[in-house]
Amino acid sequence: MSKKDLGLSIIPLGGVGEIGKNMMVFEYGQDIIVVDAGVAFPGDDLMGIDLIIPDITYLIDNKDKLRGFFITHGHEDHIGALPYVLKELNVPVYGTRLTIGLIKKKLEEHGLVNKVNLIEINPESVINTGVFQVGFFRVNHSIPDGVGLAIKTPEGLIVHSGDFKLDQTPIDGLATEFHKLTKYGEKGVLALICDSTGAEKEGYTPSEKVVGETFTKEFDKAKGRIIVATFASNVHRIQQVINAAIEHDRKVAVVGRSMVRVVEAAVELGYLHCPQSVLIELGEVARYPSDQIVIITTGSQGEPLAALTRISNGSHRQIALEPDDTVIISATPIPGNAKQVYRTINNLYKSGTEVVYKDVAPVHVSGHASQEEIKVVINMVKPKFAIPFHGEYRHLVKFKTTAVELGIPEDNVIIPAIGNRYFFHKNTFKAQGKVPSGSVMIDGLGIGDVGNIVMRDRNVLSENGVVIVALVLDKESGVVLSGPDIISRGFVYIRESDELLSKMKHELKDVLHLCQSKQIKDWATIKNRVSKTLDNLIYNELKRKPMVLTVIQEVQS
Amino acid sequence: MSKKDLGLSIIPLGGVGEIGKNMMVFEYGQDIIVVDAGVAFPGDDLMGIDLIIPDITYLIDNKDKLRGFFITHGHEDHIGALPYVLKELNVPVYGTRLTIGLIKKKLEEHGLVNKVNLIEINPESVINTGVFQVGFFRVNHSIPDGVGLAIKTPEGLIVHSGDFKLDQTPIDGLATEFHKLTKYGEKGVLALICDSTGAEKEGYTPSEKVVGETFTKEFDKAKGRIIVATFASNVHRIQQVINAAIEHDRKVAVVGRSMVRVVEAAVELGYLHCPQSVLIELGEVARYPSDQIVIITTGSQGEPLAALTRISNGSHRQIALEPDDTVIISATPIPGNAKQVYRTINNLYKSGTEVVYKDVAPVHVSGHASQEEIKVVINMVKPKFAIPFHGEYRHLVKFKTTAVELGIPEDNVIIPAIGNRYFFHKNTFKAQGKVPSGSVMIDGLGIGDVGNIVMRDRNVLSENGVVIVALVLDKESGVVLSGPDIISRGFVYIRESDELLSKMKHELKDVLHLCQSKQIKDWATIKNRVSKTLDNLIYNELKRKPMVLTVIQEVQS
Repeated sequence: MSKKDLGLSIIPLGGVGEIGKNMMVFEYGQDIIVVDAGVAFPGDDLMGIDLIIPDITYLIDNKDKLRGFFITHGHEDHIGALPYVLKELNVPVYGTRLTIGLIKKKLEEHGLVNKVNLIEINPESVINTGVFQVGFFRVNHSIPDGVGLAIKTPEGLIVHSGDFKLDQTPIDGLATEFHKLTKYGEKGVLALICDSTGAEKEGYTPSEKVVGETFTKEFDKAKGRIIVATFASNVHRIQQVINAAIEHDRKVAVVGRSMVRVVEAAVELGYLHCPQSVLIELGEVARYPSDQIVIITTGSQGEPLAALTRISNGSHRQIALEPDDTVIISATPIPGNAKQVYRTINNLYKSGTEVVYKDVAPVHVSGHASQEEIKVVINMVKPKFAIPFHGEYRHLVKFKTTAVELGIPEDNVIIPAIGNRYFFHKNTFKAQGKVPSGSVMIDGLGIGDVGNIVMRDRNVLSENGVVIVALVLDKESGVVLSGPDIISRGFVYIRESDELLSKMKHELKDVLHLCQSKQIKDWATIKNRVSKTLDNLIYNELKRKPMVLTVIQEVQS
Repeated sequence: MSKKDLGLSIIPLGGVGEIGKNMMVFEYGQDIIVVDAGVAFPGDDLMGIDLIIPDITYLIDNKDKLRGFFITHGHEDHIGALPYVLKELNVPVYGTRLTIGLIKKKLEEHGLVNKVNLIEINPESVINTGVFQVGFFRVNHSIPDGVGLAIKTPEGLIVHSGDFKLDQTPIDGLATEFHKLTKYGEKGVLALICDSTGAEKEGYTPSEKVVGETFTKEFDKAKGRIIVATFASNVHRIQQVINAAIEHDRKVAVVGRSMVRVVEAAVELGYLHCPQSVLIELGEVARYPSDQIVIITTGSQGEPLAALTRISNGSHRQIALEPDDTVIISATPIPGNAKQVYRTINNLYKSGTEVVYKDVAPVHVSGHASQEEIKVVINMVKPKFAIPFHGEYRHLVKFKTTAVELGIPEDNVIIPAIGNRYFFHKNTFKAQGKVPSGSVMIDGLGIGDVGNIVMRDRNVLSENGVVIVALVLDKESGVVLSGPDIISRGFVYIRESDELLSKMKHELKDVLHLCQSKQIKDWATIKNRVSKTLDNLIYNELKRKPMVLTVIQEVQS
């Protein structure tokens, strides 16, 4: 790029369905900084896939320019890709105390913690790196210690909201730093990059405090043990459970690997306040009367292996439900999880317990700003350009409607796409091509070795299973020496399908006989004919399309 | 059963997760009648399964007693199993005009319509069959012509609500027949079997009319074509679209196989009122200006093959989106469908169209009663016993809470389970054993040939695919004549995994060599060792667990 082409590029690099949330790149001349490095969680359509990380080819190709990662908060969709990314790109990682604490725990699990440079910042820090100067402002979110970024660039100031809501009665007493936002606004902001997750919702997102009020009510009513399931990272929520427990003279036990890990980190770092006497081990629960116990657990999304799910279906080793128990599911199902959450709720009810969930009580509030909060931020920051991020396309569109309502010209609200370069120079902007981008699928230890073809095969296999035809041919003559043998899995219960099986064998023998009489010896043709024969037979008989695989082996007779 | 054991048995026989909705059996002495014969739709966990019907072994075993099916309304979860059930049990089917009309269309597709005895009833009909006398009362629901049943039995009167809500301003002007309900109450009702789907919701379910008001507002704003997606069977909803179209001087085209079928039937039978001049063929749409067009379509649940889904992703052969289009999705996602519905919405937005859906406007109301409506019915009917049905377990529990609040003794509210026999005699009730019951899975043309083992295999295949090892052994010596050959599908893209593949081959050769040197010839042992070797290798290398299948064939050398 020649000197006259210098300008600021903003490139959303990560996010599956939800744009820009996992990773966003800022580039100017010889310098690149990256905001966040998160994972996405696959839907049911990506079978067997554990995680999805952003394709960082562009960053690897521009390794020399990379100055660091700035992490807005400690949620998985913002930090989860770091163990994979830092293996390739060992640059400083900046974050607040809790964020760095959670990153450390994560890197420890991957044996990386001593190899990387983690730099703790606070909302007053200013980081100069390359041409960029990065400042911070505190925001409210469903995890403590979240920040937004004020990125000074040669083209102007960029305000990145991070994930935020405006909670006027936050649990830790630390509200979003309005004074900084208005100050940016006074100085002039080139672009606001704004969390748009709640852009469909009118009005304000309720304060986290509302959930505490529900806890108090439910704790008042509860006769036996209280089990609260929530997101492990929602430290304020956990604080409110602990507060309610203290008020009601109950001890608190923590269950579930990720819950235990976060509570430890949060207590250690001073984000969770709990007298030592209140916390007990799970093994100690039995020593107390039921009405003196609270159990905090994972599984609020009905995840098959999480503690609450196991408790609900009777497969948890240490906790068996009692009819007097009250279970509070303090979360809302993420789209795609509704069925498994309701399965958990039904199972809980079958044990006779009381169940409190979002359909029957206000047990959850969102961590993301609604329309009125978005408006407040836009009006404080007064950006020339606005870029919604962290939402599905529908949310970005709603953000645009809101921003335009507030007087930002339609052409100045940019709905970004992953991998697109948005180029800012002299107060104008243009979309300027695309960088390599996309999703890298992680399945077990494999990173990116599962692609579209493999996923397509898993889909076919899942629908109607696999039918394998095995054959041994004479190398010279092509005569069938053994087989055709038929094996199937996930197709029909073959032992009870004699008739179908014998039809299949019969037709196969015919087609093989035909091949032989026509002197057809090349495997591709034989395989093709075998597959077609079975495909047709099975479809005609059953209207099903299993994967048919023909295995031919040759032997010298 | 001896004479002294005579009594009324109520047996919920169908429903997956949602209890009793697909089928309910009433038995007294030598007589059985059945209410509804519906299908359930499988979740993502039942891979490849199209439909689930109730196991009707009990009915087949008691064929001689069976007097008929009484169908409450024309939804799939109440009529969908008839084509399968009537093949085994050819008894009269009773239903109102629209219900019978829809059943006919269904049976026509299965070539059964001339073989069965469909009997049209109206709310004033009385059917005497065996010891039972069945009367009817009109109810409101999300399909016209729904009824509840008043079943006179030797043990007393049973009121079965059908699926209902109490709509005070119904589109067809026909409200639920309160006078019949209060009359039953005056005469004395042994048991109320009550739709509990909405039992979690406080207050009243809004009137269907509310949706019409939204239509009017959105039609007022729309600049170009209007596309409305809704459930094909929601005739009142479709009527409101047509009404709004007429008000706004727009023509109406209908798209989607099931939508076309229902509209035809509803117009023919007089349930849908539409001047001939308003309806046009899809092919005629292009002849009119955009602002004179409404298209009614299927796909409100984001079903992959439905018309709206195809329109949204640009794969519909006849409809291409235009930026001025307004798409109204007049439905709420059924749990499990949320992700695919939002995918459709995002795709629609990407075409620049306006999208109106339940998160941004009141475009849908439920067809099921909320708590206050359930209370009204209980207080009108004044039953001795109450049995909630048609809901997940959580809904049945909430119904119970409501019924107990209204003064029905806790022991008299029965939360039913599928297959359980609830036996009523002399104003008392006891649970009395279980009859054969459960789910029969339909995959293509196969009914019940896919069971748990097959489903388990499909699950394993979907997660990590299949690895096949093929071997040819000498029949006498057990020497490997060909192979081991390795084929995989849905595992990794094997052409890019040379290293893994050669490791696998190497270890397999070792283990086969060992088998041979130890004179191991039985296939089970060899297969077992081969599988274990690959299982371990793959898990260590990749932390994955594909299905490993070993195919051994023998040849006489």
